[in-house]
Amino acid sequence: MIGVGVIGFGYWGPNLVRNFHEMPDSRVLAVSDLRMDRLALAAARYPGIGIMQSPTDLIRSPAVDAVVIATPVSTHFELAMEALKAGKHVLVEKPLAMTGEQSWQLIEEAEKRRRVLMVDHTFVYTGSVRKMKELIGAGEVGDLYYYDSVRVNLGLFQHDVNVLWDLAVHDLSIMDYLLPSRPRAVSATGMRHVAQEPENIAYLTLFYDSSLIAHIHVNWLAPVKVRRTLIGGSRKMIIYDDVEPSEKVKVYDKGVTTERQQAHSEAVYKMLVGYRAGDMWAPQLDATEALKREARHFLDCIAGRAAPMTNGEAGARIVQILEAATLSMAERGRLIELDRMQVTA
Amino acid sequence: MIGVGVIGFGYWGPNLVRNFHEMPDSRVLAVSDLRMDRLALAAARYPGIGIMQSPTDLIRSPAVDAVVIATPVSTHFELAMEALKAGKHVLVEKPLAMTGEQSWQLIEEAEKRRRVLMVDHTFVYTGSVRKMKELIGAGEVGDLYYYDSVRVNLGLFQHDVNVLWDLAVHDLSIMDYLLPSRPRAVSATGMRHVAQEPENIAYLTLFYDSSLIAHIHVNWLAPVKVRRTLIGGSRKMIIYDDVEPSEKVKVYDKGVTTERQQAHSEAVYKMLVGYRAGDMWAPQLDATEALKREARHFLDCIAGRAAPMTNGEAGARIVQILEAATLSMAERGRLIELDRMQVTA
Amino acid sequence: MIGVGVIGFGYWGPNLVRNFHEMPDSRVLAVSDLRMDRLALAAARYPGIGIMQSPTDLIRSPAVDAVVIATPVSTHFELAMEALKAGKHVLVEKPLAMTGEQSWQLIEEAEKRRRVLMVDHTFVYTGSVRKMKELIGAGEVGDLYYYDSVRVNLGLFQHDVNVLWDLAVHDLSIMDYLLPSRPRAVSATGMRHVAQEPENIAYLTLFYDSSLIAHIHVNWLAPVKVRRTLIGGSRKMIIYDDVEPSEKVKVYDKGVTTERQQAHSEAVYKMLVGYRAGDMWAPQLDATEALKREARHFLDCIAGRAAPMTNGEAGARIVQILEAATLSMAERGRLIELDRMQVTA
Amino acid sequence: MIGVGVIGFGYWGPNLVRNFHEMPDSRVLAVSDLRMDRLALAAARYPGIGIMQSPTDLIRSPAVDAVVIATPVSTHFELAMEALKAGKHVLVEKPLAMTGEQSWQLIEEAEKRRRVLMVDHTFVYTGSVRKMKELIGAGEVGDLYYYDSVRVNLGLFQHDVNVLWDLAVHDLSIMDYLLPSRPRAVSATGMRHVAQEPENIAYLTLFYDSSLIAHIHVNWLAPVKVRRTLIGGSRKMIIYDDVEPSEKVKVYDKGVTTERQQAHSEAVYKMLVGYRAGDMWAPQLDATEALKREARHFLDCIAGRAAPMTNGEAGARIVQILEAATLSMAERGRLIELDRMQVTA
Repeated sequence: MIGVGVIGFGYWGPNLVRNFHEMPDSRVLAVSDLRMDRLALAAARYPGIGIMQSPTDLIRSPAVDAVVIATPVSTHFELAMEALKAGKHVLVEKPLAMTGEQSWQLIEEAEKRRRVLMVDHTFVYTGSVRKMKELIGAGEVGDLYYYDSVRVNLGLFQHDVNVLWDLAVHDLSIMDYLLPSRPRAVSATGMRHVAQEPENIAYLTLFYDSSLIAHIHVNWLAPVKVRRTLIGGSRKMIIYDDVEPSEKVKVYDKGVTTERQQAHSEAVYKMLVGYRAGDMWAPQLDATEALKREARHFLDCIAGRAAPMTNGEAGARIVQILEAATLSMAERGRLIELDRMQVTA
Repeated sequence: MIGVGVIGFGYWGPNLVRNFHEMPDSRVLAVSDLRMDRLALAAARYPGIGIMQSPTDLIRSPAVDAVVIATPVSTHFELAMEALKAGKHVLVEKPLAMTGEQSWQLIEEAEKRRRVLMVDHTFVYTGSVRKMKELIGAGEVGDLYYYDSVRVNLGLFQHDVNVLWDLAVHDLSIMDYLLPSRPRAVSATGMRHVAQEPENIAYLTLFYDSSLIAHIHVNWLAPVKVRRTLIGGSRKMIIYDDVEPSEKVKVYDKGVTTERQQAHSEAVYKMLVGYRAGDMWAPQLDATEALKREARHFLDCIAGRAAPMTNGEAGARIVQILEAATLSMAERGRLIELDRMQVTA
Repeated sequence: MIGVGVIGFGYWGPNLVRNFHEMPDSRVLAVSDLRMDRLALAAARYPGIGIMQSPTDLIRSPAVDAVVIATPVSTHFELAMEALKAGKHVLVEKPLAMTGEQSWQLIEEAEKRRRVLMVDHTFVYTGSVRKMKELIGAGEVGDLYYYDSVRVNLGLFQHDVNVLWDLAVHDLSIMDYLLPSRPRAVSATGMRHVAQEPENIAYLTLFYDSSLIAHIHVNWLAPVKVRRTLIGGSRKMIIYDDVEPSEKVKVYDKGVTTERQQAHSEAVYKMLVGYRAGDMWAPQLDATEALKREARHFLDCIAGRAAPMTNGEAGARIVQILEAATLSMAERGRLIELDRMQVTA
Repeated sequence: MIGVGVIGFGYWGPNLVRNFHEMPDSRVLAVSDLRMDRLALAAARYPGIGIMQSPTDLIRSPAVDAVVIATPVSTHFELAMEALKAGKHVLVEKPLAMTGEQSWQLIEEAEKRRRVLMVDHTFVYTGSVRKMKELIGAGEVGDLYYYDSVRVNLGLFQHDVNVLWDLAVHDLSIMDYLLPSRPRAVSATGMRHVAQEPENIAYLTLFYDSSLIAHIHVNWLAPVKVRRTLIGGSRKMIIYDDVEPSEKVKVYDKGVTTERQQAHSEAVYKMLVGYRAGDMWAPQLDATEALKREARHFLDCIAGRAAPMTNGEAGARIVQILEAATLSMAERGRLIELDRMQVTA
């Protein structure tokens, strides 16, 4: 039985507690939060659980084997480091930390202590993303042309990080898992509309060695919720719409065909672009709750039965892109090469 | 009765011919196209019309008072200039020309000859865009925060211009009409996926003097057709979805509220961002075909009863943004200041 | 503090337990279910709660003031009667009973014992239905022409009642609350597609004294989930779509206009029907969970602060319609007058 | 070259004229309409065409080989009979006539004169319906359980027939083509909401020898346009949504599975209903305009190269159902057996 402590019982914490509570081989022993009303809620829902304001008290509890961190981003590094140094396994809500440097320190500490360090890149554990991984891996989509995501809604503004760190991080974690190569450079633009708050709207382009281009479009100030990703390839195209109640992944047999042809009335040749339109197909998806699968995986990693799919390195790669994007956004789209920033594991 | 000649009977030309054909005070006298099969089609539909391969023959027809140009972009300047020099009024399909320089030459020629030069920025004449103009003009939306458009579909690849010139031009013309200020700088990214063809996917950010930010997202290689614009303001937000059969414009009483508040457990103050969600409202829209209203307006301008809403200057401003965006895209998002390029009328 | 006991911890029971558990003035003391695995689940979620297989034991617990019944329809009458006779207040999941006769016996028993008898017509407590009640009550919709509901999905087949009792009951409870008059007659058709199971698809028409007509369309064997009601009136029309994540209620300023006009080329007059199309409007809805509001209301009724909105009589009226519809369906649409069946309270 | 005359240039007539005008082996020689403004419009669009008020003049024109009738339903019989007696081939807009009796007279006359009598059941010629025919014919859907159509919109009220004759006729023609058996009885309900006009809302259930049940739901007074059919079978289910711009036909691998199982805690057996959910698939559809394919087919039938898919018998079967439904509706759902009415060909 693995003892779990959860730091932070705000928006996401309750979901983590619920899932670890329902696993047969783990037990949530303690929850900490600075807010008394949140602790009261946790106590009401889980009468036997220990509640405390101090995360340090939670981390030091001897029965706690694994610490799950669901607090604002700016506190991730300190809490995760403290937990690793106390010999605990750690699952950190995304993004892993505020800087690549911090991320690599956490990775080193985990390796030194032989503890599991995992990042809560929840979407990687959804049936939708796993199905797309399968399709792309099997060559169904062909050469990848673009990855294009719109992820907008009204709220929740965060105070310590801009909208990229809150929303684009989901796309970056999906891309890190799905795409066969790593981005080389980024260009980002964005704007703040609430004084003294970080940027609430942002656009991020990622360049790769190939002709693959990725674009992420995030907004905390949109009137409707949109979660829609288009993936274009030479053989097929995918629409992944997470707001759809069913058929979240649709695969289109559409594309262009090209052939050289003699141009009209001239003795020159030009490319003729044709269009191919075939069936659409929406594969049945595994409907298991992503966080349940992720909690299962974390426990398996602790037990030595698996290696984390969303490990510290994945977390670090994404944090580095977010750092570069934030820098680019401050300079209105200046291209930032990722290679120069990237620390090799 | 105004005699009209239409150059180009491809995708858009037939719509222009039909509309001028049905106006009580104009008559389409001639259609020219390089392709014999298109001329045969025009003759079959309009038995009395003159057909010819040479645009010069059409321009020189004495009975032709106005020339409408619906040919590939790269031919716009030459044909429009020839028509103006022949003393004809000219309506040019968007975009006006390949460069700002060309655009200003056309404007000067039209002024010198006292002829109407109008650009076919069709969307400006739709009930949807006119209603949004009315709402923004009346202050309903408040301070403008963002203008965000997605305009993607499969095809039609063009060979002489990239996707920005084909699709983003629509958004730029709508913005030129709707927004109270002009963009100051652009940053664009994009990619080509068909060898020897121009970029088929592009992302364009526009910066203004205020905190307004605009973003246009275009793609010739998308599996579905999307035509969706979000406009965010301090008082209201608009969704303009041109694919919707009805309720194309929806106005949301949504937004953020901010107040200074003492942060929990600390003696510091921070901004508290709240959310406001009220009714949604879809105003009834005038369903008149945009091109019909535009044709009407062009004839009124020729008759001296109106001044073109989408005149040469509007065309030139948009061409200059497209030029700057193409340059920025070639350098992966480099910021291009528009002021330095902009020729003052 | 009101002690609550919940009989049945299957699909709906857990929602009832959760809501009464979180009310400040009630406490869930006991849960009963025939299935041991369901009791184990209840115990895991609510460690302090009493669990038992026998509903009689639960009903007889002296600390239990109110009994909530969430079991198959065929058991409602017996359990509710037992609870009333034991002096408990009773909330019964819809539909109240299997027959009108049973329903009226429960009503009498509750009156005799001066106990609250309420039916869980959940939709009556939603923000959507309450808003529509407000609109219809204020005359916004004008004279009512039709109420037309489609409520289909895949599963869950029930074994003791046909699909009308499972799904149409929701519409009937909404109509009982919303509409200003009572139906006079019904005609129903339907079919079974699984041997030995009740009808899984059914169509029910209700007639009123006025020209109002209602139609309910239910299906357990549909590939998609649809929950869509159209309400037509002389002034406005409403679409209520419960599957929509937001804007569940849309009000259309649409309708017909009529005028007498001289018919073309003849000296006779005929009606000319015109169409009126105006704005659409989606009012902001109260997003409180319906069951929370209902639980609150039930406790208020027990405390004597309110009278049940969905009382036994409402339950009986609906059961009588379901009885009549089942009879009509067996005879392929034979008209059944409700007046002859209806027992007056 | 087949000479075609079109009677009626209202809503649908212009589409018929356009299609026969563009066929290589037919020529539209004449158009008749009682309204001068419609004739003027026809003359403006097709300068060479003969226009006339009298349908008799058109029918008597010696160069006219085929007469196409696109007038109000109440005039179909007389005009079609006149044309057949004049030795013309006839294509009649749906429905064929006002009664089954009239329909069979037309069929006899056509047979006697050896002329083609075809009904304009347009939907039978769409890519969507043809694809569904192919799927059902190949056994993909399994045993048919239900056919369920919603076809509602605002307008166009007709004065000579109720909404069933205007809208349900489409569904009946699709069912006549798609389904492997014929309905045996009908039960219909409906209502009128405009004084002195026919019923504007109607619900029609059709019974078959098997457990197949069909239901058609039509309304001239709905705030939105819906064209949605659900077809359920033992193996697959289909959604056919004609309002969708693409993916009009979706095939769901969904259904129920049944097995006998020992019921819990009792020594009795009961059916256990399970649910099967698999992939969804939207086949690519032929996008040819239905009316073009139909016009082609009519000309082929005249030339003796084909026999009409939507012949007089199909038209008569549908008219008889409409007659029975109208009768049933007048008696609020009374079951009308079709066998007793049906005249055998």
